[in-house]
Amino acid sequence: MAEFTIIEKYFTELGSDHKETLLSVGDDAAVVEVPEGFELAISVDTMTEGIHFMKGLSPELLAHKLLTVNLSDMAAMGAKPRWATLAMGLDAHDEEWLERFSTTLHKTAKAYGVQIIGGDTTEGPLVLTLTIMGLLPIGMRMTRCGAKVGDKVYCSGVVGDAGLALTKLLGEQALDDELFAQVLPALHMPAPQVTLGQRLLGQVNSCIDISDGLIGDCEHIANRSNVSINIELRNIPLSPAYRNYIEQGGFMRYAVAGGDDYQLLFTISEEKAAVLETISKDLDVSLTEIGSVVARDDELVRLFDDGKPTTMKLKSFQHFS
Amino acid sequence: MAEFTIIEKYFTELGSDHKETLLSVGDDAAVVEVPEGFELAISVDTMTEGIHFMKGLSPELLAHKLLTVNLSDMAAMGAKPRWATLAMGLDAHDEEWLERFSTTLHKTAKAYGVQIIGGDTTEGPLVLTLTIMGLLPIGMRMTRCGAKVGDKVYCSGVVGDAGLALTKLLGEQALDDELFAQVLPALHMPAPQVTLGQRLLGQVNSCIDISDGLIGDCEHIANRSNVSINIELRNIPLSPAYRNYIEQGGFMRYAVAGGDDYQLLFTISEEKAAVLETISKDLDVSLTEIGSVVARDDELVRLFDDGKPTTMKLKSFQHFS
Repeated sequence: MAEFTIIEKYFTELGSDHKETLLSVGDDAAVVEVPEGFELAISVDTMTEGIHFMKGLSPELLAHKLLTVNLSDMAAMGAKPRWATLAMGLDAHDEEWLERFSTTLHKTAKAYGVQIIGGDTTEGPLVLTLTIMGLLPIGMRMTRCGAKVGDKVYCSGVVGDAGLALTKLLGEQALDDELFAQVLPALHMPAPQVTLGQRLLGQVNSCIDISDGLIGDCEHIANRSNVSINIELRNIPLSPAYRNYIEQGGFMRYAVAGGDDYQLLFTISEEKAAVLETISKDLDVSLTEIGSVVARDDELVRLFDDGKPTTMKLKSFQHFS
Repeated sequence: MAEFTIIEKYFTELGSDHKETLLSVGDDAAVVEVPEGFELAISVDTMTEGIHFMKGLSPELLAHKLLTVNLSDMAAMGAKPRWATLAMGLDAHDEEWLERFSTTLHKTAKAYGVQIIGGDTTEGPLVLTLTIMGLLPIGMRMTRCGAKVGDKVYCSGVVGDAGLALTKLLGEQALDDELFAQVLPALHMPAPQVTLGQRLLGQVNSCIDISDGLIGDCEHIANRSNVSINIELRNIPLSPAYRNYIEQGGFMRYAVAGGDDYQLLFTISEEKAAVLETISKDLDVSLTEIGSVVARDDELVRLFDDGKPTTMKLKSFQHFS
């Protein structure tokens, strides 16, 4: 099938339909209007077969995850997701695959208010690059740079399940079927904290999404804010399944350095932290205090176990490492 | 080298530095301000090793071309290029390669007023995806949809050299060394018509950049504008080198269906066409009348040879075809 036909058939009207979209797929460029009072947040993420996902992953899971990793970046900024462009390499994928992929992409994008306004399909290895754009009220963005000494460090939801599920898929660890079934959805169908991100605007001093692992992302905040961060391991929020795994002699490492959690990690002053209870209730999402921001010293992040410094050495998951 | 290090070292401050860029590379997203009175044009293009360029192409040529294909889309819309995000797969490319690639990307982006505000580098095959954003005065965009019966069809610069050079590189055709040296720069160092695009705003009825081949791109305009287009083959602007090649028994096909020309093809009313002389002089770029827009019939594009219909059959270059 010709490239033009593929774009016309599968990628022309995906996701929401915004009135600020003046021109969508089908011309040399899309054209959008950024409403008065807003700035534009822009982020790009790529997923490559064999690197970020395994060969043969279903097109539904792939479409869902591609949007999730990008939506999570919007969440971390507090931006309202709005538009996206998609570039994809298609190595011998048939029409059924394209139909399934684009159907899920459409549904998921629509659920989060995203319109796909540009696409480029090319022959080649299965590489998917999505550039997402979102709206931010002027001057309100959350960044990694604003953490202040004395801030409390919070984490949304639970972490570790996705990393744990991945170890089984990679054959690194045997997990019993029940546990695996409990943690797998976190890896395959993560739910980015888009609404939470927007609610945190104007409240927090810094924010990041947990995609490289909790400690690695703490390091990003500490580094960019020129502070250090103390984390109490016992306060890290875990799912009942993960707790059960720990009680049976499992490892904490997937919770602190697993990656793919797509939760928000943020720092907030003690005075403002009271607002989190309301937000937590409104959105039905747990917000757990896991540490505090201290003056910069020679370690970006220090781990504590029940108040005592631990020497547990953990490296954040990094591509290329 | 870790992904973070690569981004920090090679991709943090590339291209121009705009005051409307509120946050650049280094956070979960970049943040920009679209100035009052402007809309945002967005386009995405991917280049894949082995598909869009040959293995071993120098990082300088690659960086230049990646920007060109995207800048050419901005030119076709009449937009002023402003920002871009870059996603790249890096299959065992060393620091020297990264240094050379990013140096040219920086210089070329700066020359065209583009700032790279977001990046994602991943392990994997050499696939480069650039999403470009540009500013358009509100309501002024040029599209493929506005061609009107009676419009004259124009083409900027010359076409065919890039396609001709490619045939030699692909081993499809022998070219003598002198000819090859004359046409190769069109393939390797194309100059997108960014300034011309902005000058045509408000004058033309439709516009597209010639990336799929002149006839294929005429078809895009005809299709989206619901018209047909007549093209006079003898009026198609050729370089002296290409004319020489034709006189020695060469083929017209690379000029009409070669692709990679990155010239602008546009339609304009007879009354307005007078303005083109001034624009041509100001910018020192030739603008050649090559045909006319007629009522839609059963062929999107008809070719004429010295006024007589020709049955020359040409297929536009298409990936996947």
